[in-house]
Amino acid sequence: MTTTTVPDSPATGWRATGVAQLEPAELERIDAWWRAANYLSVGQIYLLDNPLLREKLTPDHVKPRLLGHWGTTPGLNFLYAHLNRAVAQRQQPTMYLTGPGHGGPGLVASAYLDGTYSEVYSDITQDTEGVRRLFRQFSFPGGIPSHVAPETPGSIHEGGELGYALSHAYGAAFDNPDLLVAAVVGDGEAETGPLATSWHSNKFLNPAQDGVVLPILHLNGYKIANPTVLARIPQDELRDLMVGYGYTPHFFEGGYDEDESPLDVHRRFATLLDEVLDEIAAIKERAADGDLSRPAWPMIVFRTPKGWSGPAEIDGKKTTGSWRAHQVPLANARDTPEHLAVLETWLRSYRPEELFDDEGRVLPEITALAPQGALRMSATPHANGGLLLKDLRLPDFRDYAVDVPVPGGSTSEAPRVLGQWLTDVIRLNPDNFRIFGPDEVASNRLQAVYDTTDKQWNAEFIGPEVDEHMARAGRVMEMLSEHQVQGWLEGYLLTGRHGLLTSYEAFIHIIDSMFNQHAKWLKVTNDISWRRPVASLNYLLSSHVWRQDHNGFSHQDPGFIDHVVNKKAEIVRVYLPPDANTLLSTYDHCLRSRQYVNVVVAGKQPAPNFLDMEAAIEHCTRGLGIWEWAGTETAGEKPDVVLGCAGDVPTMEVLAAADILRRELPDLKVRVVNVVDLMRLQDATEHPHGLTDREFDGLFTPDRPVVFAYHGYPWLIHRLTYRRTGHEHWHVRGYKEEGTTTTPFDMVMLNDLDRYHLVIDVIDRVPSLGSTQAGLRQRMQDARIRARAWTREHGDDIPEVRDWVWPDAQDQADSGQVGATLGTGGDNE
Amino acid sequence: MTTTTVPDSPATGWRATGVAQLEPAELERIDAWWRAANYLSVGQIYLLDNPLLREKLTPDHVKPRLLGHWGTTPGLNFLYAHLNRAVAQRQQPTMYLTGPGHGGPGLVASAYLDGTYSEVYSDITQDTEGVRRLFRQFSFPGGIPSHVAPETPGSIHEGGELGYALSHAYGAAFDNPDLLVAAVVGDGEAETGPLATSWHSNKFLNPAQDGVVLPILHLNGYKIANPTVLARIPQDELRDLMVGYGYTPHFFEGGYDEDESPLDVHRRFATLLDEVLDEIAAIKERAADGDLSRPAWPMIVFRTPKGWSGPAEIDGKKTTGSWRAHQVPLANARDTPEHLAVLETWLRSYRPEELFDDEGRVLPEITALAPQGALRMSATPHANGGLLLKDLRLPDFRDYAVDVPVPGGSTSEAPRVLGQWLTDVIRLNPDNFRIFGPDEVASNRLQAVYDTTDKQWNAEFIGPEVDEHMARAGRVMEMLSEHQVQGWLEGYLLTGRHGLLTSYEAFIHIIDSMFNQHAKWLKVTNDISWRRPVASLNYLLSSHVWRQDHNGFSHQDPGFIDHVVNKKAEIVRVYLPPDANTLLSTYDHCLRSRQYVNVVVAGKQPAPNFLDMEAAIEHCTRGLGIWEWAGTETAGEKPDVVLGCAGDVPTMEVLAAADILRRELPDLKVRVVNVVDLMRLQDATEHPHGLTDREFDGLFTPDRPVVFAYHGYPWLIHRLTYRRTGHEHWHVRGYKEEGTTTTPFDMVMLNDLDRYHLVIDVIDRVPSLGSTQAGLRQRMQDARIRARAWTREHGDDIPEVRDWVWPDAQDQADSGQVGATLGTGGDNE
Repeated sequence: MTTTTVPDSPATGWRATGVAQLEPAELERIDAWWRAANYLSVGQIYLLDNPLLREKLTPDHVKPRLLGHWGTTPGLNFLYAHLNRAVAQRQQPTMYLTGPGHGGPGLVASAYLDGTYSEVYSDITQDTEGVRRLFRQFSFPGGIPSHVAPETPGSIHEGGELGYALSHAYGAAFDNPDLLVAAVVGDGEAETGPLATSWHSNKFLNPAQDGVVLPILHLNGYKIANPTVLARIPQDELRDLMVGYGYTPHFFEGGYDEDESPLDVHRRFATLLDEVLDEIAAIKERAADGDLSRPAWPMIVFRTPKGWSGPAEIDGKKTTGSWRAHQVPLANARDTPEHLAVLETWLRSYRPEELFDDEGRVLPEITALAPQGALRMSATPHANGGLLLKDLRLPDFRDYAVDVPVPGGSTSEAPRVLGQWLTDVIRLNPDNFRIFGPDEVASNRLQAVYDTTDKQWNAEFIGPEVDEHMARAGRVMEMLSEHQVQGWLEGYLLTGRHGLLTSYEAFIHIIDSMFNQHAKWLKVTNDISWRRPVASLNYLLSSHVWRQDHNGFSHQDPGFIDHVVNKKAEIVRVYLPPDANTLLSTYDHCLRSRQYVNVVVAGKQPAPNFLDMEAAIEHCTRGLGIWEWAGTETAGEKPDVVLGCAGDVPTMEVLAAADILRRELPDLKVRVVNVVDLMRLQDATEHPHGLTDREFDGLFTPDRPVVFAYHGYPWLIHRLTYRRTGHEHWHVRGYKEEGTTTTPFDMVMLNDLDRYHLVIDVIDRVPSLGSTQAGLRQRMQDARIRARAWTREHGDDIPEVRDWVWPDAQDQADSGQVGATLGTGGDNE
Repeated sequence: MTTTTVPDSPATGWRATGVAQLEPAELERIDAWWRAANYLSVGQIYLLDNPLLREKLTPDHVKPRLLGHWGTTPGLNFLYAHLNRAVAQRQQPTMYLTGPGHGGPGLVASAYLDGTYSEVYSDITQDTEGVRRLFRQFSFPGGIPSHVAPETPGSIHEGGELGYALSHAYGAAFDNPDLLVAAVVGDGEAETGPLATSWHSNKFLNPAQDGVVLPILHLNGYKIANPTVLARIPQDELRDLMVGYGYTPHFFEGGYDEDESPLDVHRRFATLLDEVLDEIAAIKERAADGDLSRPAWPMIVFRTPKGWSGPAEIDGKKTTGSWRAHQVPLANARDTPEHLAVLETWLRSYRPEELFDDEGRVLPEITALAPQGALRMSATPHANGGLLLKDLRLPDFRDYAVDVPVPGGSTSEAPRVLGQWLTDVIRLNPDNFRIFGPDEVASNRLQAVYDTTDKQWNAEFIGPEVDEHMARAGRVMEMLSEHQVQGWLEGYLLTGRHGLLTSYEAFIHIIDSMFNQHAKWLKVTNDISWRRPVASLNYLLSSHVWRQDHNGFSHQDPGFIDHVVNKKAEIVRVYLPPDANTLLSTYDHCLRSRQYVNVVVAGKQPAPNFLDMEAAIEHCTRGLGIWEWAGTETAGEKPDVVLGCAGDVPTMEVLAAADILRRELPDLKVRVVNVVDLMRLQDATEHPHGLTDREFDGLFTPDRPVVFAYHGYPWLIHRLTYRRTGHEHWHVRGYKEEGTTTTPFDMVMLNDLDRYHLVIDVIDRVPSLGSTQAGLRQRMQDARIRARAWTREHGDDIPEVRDWVWPDAQDQADSGQVGATLGTGGDNE
């Protein structure tokens, strides 16, 4: 394998060329490319040997296990061929995004034909042996996947899960004003929810500042085993649907009329493509002249038979133009002579002898169809975003610190503080950083960013009294679809930019599966030498499980962390900063990182600050540590009990419990350990951030009771620590599914995570206390009951809880000092 | 609380009444209902006391924490009022489905007005004290949620997560030919992916056999902090979109023209509603006459101001008709005299003195708007599906058993066997059981069901050569959207029917969040006395992580089980039947169960059968057990090692390892334990299916090494067992994220779950073997390397692995007996 360097920037495109009057030779060239691509695709699926059919096909030439998808492939190849011609003619930087990514053989074939494949995989040479290897490796042990995948040059889009072609395409187009993204949408994929809403991305695109997405709806009519919905509604209805989505649809149908010559089909499509690209060029020109209003961008409905050019029938059953062409027709080609004959006839129908020279090299007059260098769609640097990635210019986060004169000595909504820093991140990085959210950026308290930017919006405006912070260009992208904003961000990151997504913790599960696919993409690219690292995908989950006052049970689920932790340790990071300064320090780290998914959970409600910036940096650098100021242990002696905590609410409750313990049991030696970086709990052999056993024992002791208060489901802490020496002494409290409640402390009590219960846990677990502290235990029980009764009477938390502050802060207040407090302002859900 | 019994069936509806010429008094009644509902809604959000405003409003009357959502509520109330009138007039059984379910106060208010609320909650009486309690309980500790929720009579739809209003509505309508489902879709919700594709449900509805969904797109223009997309495109574009989705849109706009009297607004909407309902009646009549083709069902675009009837401005900022009305306007009403005054003016604008009598009872001339009994939308038995639920008539699954003369003595694709039983389930239950899948029913090998039914489809047909098993009525529902089919099934179950969903294991994560909401619904309804149990939600995941030959890495993720296990133990069940007969027995159990989510993972590839039906039933009844025939222990003595397994592929590998061990180390006492019901591993105190420690130790021993081969991520087994005595002796192998591979055994090897590695594990963990069996260990290593090299050379598994059978089956084969084998047939993805 060789690595790719950043190619010279091609000339800017958007040329209106008019409709090319193609000579027959040019149409022949397109057809020859298409045949070559189809031949190479079928070859990948079926052939183990005899790659150029220079001898008669025998069973031994056929792979023993036939795996892959043929049906969508010829359509993809047809489009790639035609785009080649147009891209070369217009010198238009173009990315080809394959929604039906199971058509992997097609994209590999196209990348091989334009030379990219052999450049990045030097063993897949441009000769007979190279073709043989190309065929053999496909969906073969030790080879390449059957889908479009990270291994496929030119792709940012794994073909394994359908639904995200357009959101990825628009994400790629944002801030790439000269880029055309030709996005093929399968008509199967078009039935998915995420795809169905992603058409509306056009209301969020700025025609001057952003690139262009050309959706091509590939209406081949069938899925795995069914017809597709959009292929089975009247064409007028489909037209209305596309017009309703805000596009100008262009209909093309090819491959059904047996009397029409292939060259005529090519001529018709070339004409249509030129018309469409000229329409785009005209829109871009108007935008350059200042008209930024939303145009009805063109899109193409491309109706061709599924498995086009394959066998019409197999065993008397219609195959081409039916769902039977979806995967591998002729599944028994190796064992059934009739099928083998059909396969050979099929392969020879592409006339390989006209496509390859004696050495097995594709004829140069065919490959000449493709553009050169970085204009080749398989070689576009945009699809290897790390090549284009620039470090963010980050303002010094220390300058945004909140004042924390003593622990608990000030109060902040942590994300609101982060928002001030992000404002300057946006200011310093005006064209490669965006914030994404499903209508929750302000709700999650990042609204300071509107001091310097707006929400990008290109639907109708009404007026400033309702359209606050909305403009045709802006760094914040909001639509009420987690799928859409996640897809946009993925596309934006994979093309070499930076961003973050803020959402509610419970509903981020909506994109569980998208996270999976992105994490898998990152994992695989780590092992592909020509793929360069991209910026991490950063989450900020600020409406978390413990503060769903407006919403309750349906909004309570901290399990996204569990889901994330199932992925490879080298890819995922989970942070639970307990206050504003630790959140700042954490996020600075996240925005500098590469190739991770960083999940940051930090509540948006006013909460005490515990660490000044210096302490916050030290704490975040360690990832976890003893808060000596909160404990009562004596230097050099083991504590009697360790109170662990991870998450803002659990940290506050642990501190409140520590406060009670130091008042009630002044001789008890309590250690408080706070965890910011959850992965540090794991073993060093399991996660790169993991602690060694020695480090772990140094913090938590191998033999003292540990009462651990955790933000999420408690068993995750057990899972991370069950191999540690002292694990049998661990008692973890976390979130349980217990139904709605509407005051915060009530919620905490419902989950037994409250200060009183933590004190009871300590009494029950420190042997010396169990027998002597029955009275304190009872008082804690009574305090809980009193607190619960108060909420039911008053609809609010009991003052002793609501107004509790860490004793140092109380001392400070008593002495007349006041810590800085950030106002709480707008209280959107 | 009282419980509801099944009311008498109301007369069938679908009367065409023409447009009612409403007298002013009737319009006044509608308006009074609307004002009463709005008053009761605002009261719930704000008032702690003084419910009928019989005295001047003081801060003490206002709740200390104001929680809830006002913006969508008046529109919901308006629609409910008008539907009341029409339902009563037409005697049309109707369910009201609230997409913007955060408008909880509105639905509670409406249920209170029609009397249902006081019937099911006897403490919420129809008098002043009842109103006070109604207000106080709302979003209050110990009270009711702020959203539409299980606690809300008439609802099957939790308002916490947006996107599923239409799929739930269509699910409710299937097989309910006389039911109208009025489904309000919020324009925020309309931006979600699942909602965007769910409009297409109309292509899957049979106009005779199924009920009718009337979508009402509530275009109030704003979300939490942004305008909505569909409110900011030209009306023509929105019309095209709805026509493109296959509907006949009817546009209504109200509340913007200050010169129009409220009665005129009501008159216009009543007229429109009558026209639409007559249009529906006409379609139903045509369907009754045999025209089953897809009509363009009517839908309503209902454009009204967000927060309609609320304060126009607050603090000089536009509130009604803007996103500022979304949640709680006047958030500081208790502390700010000006806001308190605005609140009082707002409440009094509904003229409560005209709505309630001296005792605080709503005037009977107002409540008379509602229909009676079960026709009340809040009282419809369809929204309390357990009332209507009938047990399935299940054929005896033992009659579908595969022959297993000896363990391993036959081969089946287990789901194909299940499909034969399901065929007869369908035959015996022609109108209350459906199978749902995202284009994967045949791929997952249930195609036998097409012997007796079809896929329901009401888009265009082409002809039998491609439209196999498709008809306008059928029991199988397939669309390429996991969201859609999950939503349909949820709606179908919650209205008292039965079903299952089959999907690929990796992509079921797409509906993680929907599963969460359904599980939460079930959990809460378990504690609501008037809610009757509904049938369980059954999954069949047959394309699982270990056999993704066509697809590879992107299709590999066994984490849905982990996700499910995070929910309450009383709700979730996970089954991993190892072969065909155990799958039959398991699924019989699932289809009989209530109020669970049953996750069944069973591979679709040909695999050996181990248990005959008698043994399968016994094994499934226990949920796990020792397979004595597979082990080599001596009765009365402890084994030297326990081989545990859960899942079909791990079971086969464990048996292959046991086979090697009995040949190579005949003196080693091996016990094999297979687990079908994963929850049995948990402690009895954690899960109702859990084993006691004594039972657990009896199976796994407290002190012998356990090598456990598990289908999914290994830490789940640790999580389920870490509290057990012998846990430190457990070594679990399961799925690791390791990238694509394309032969099954290669995949197993990549994960170290293969037979050779399991033997090595035994050698490494049984103390007596470590020093003596270095030779065997080396041979196992060599066998792995050989197997791996073979796949890379031949593209298939090495014969010694591929052709391995359990020795009893080999003996049987050698003696000429042959077990029954079900053909493998079609090989769809």
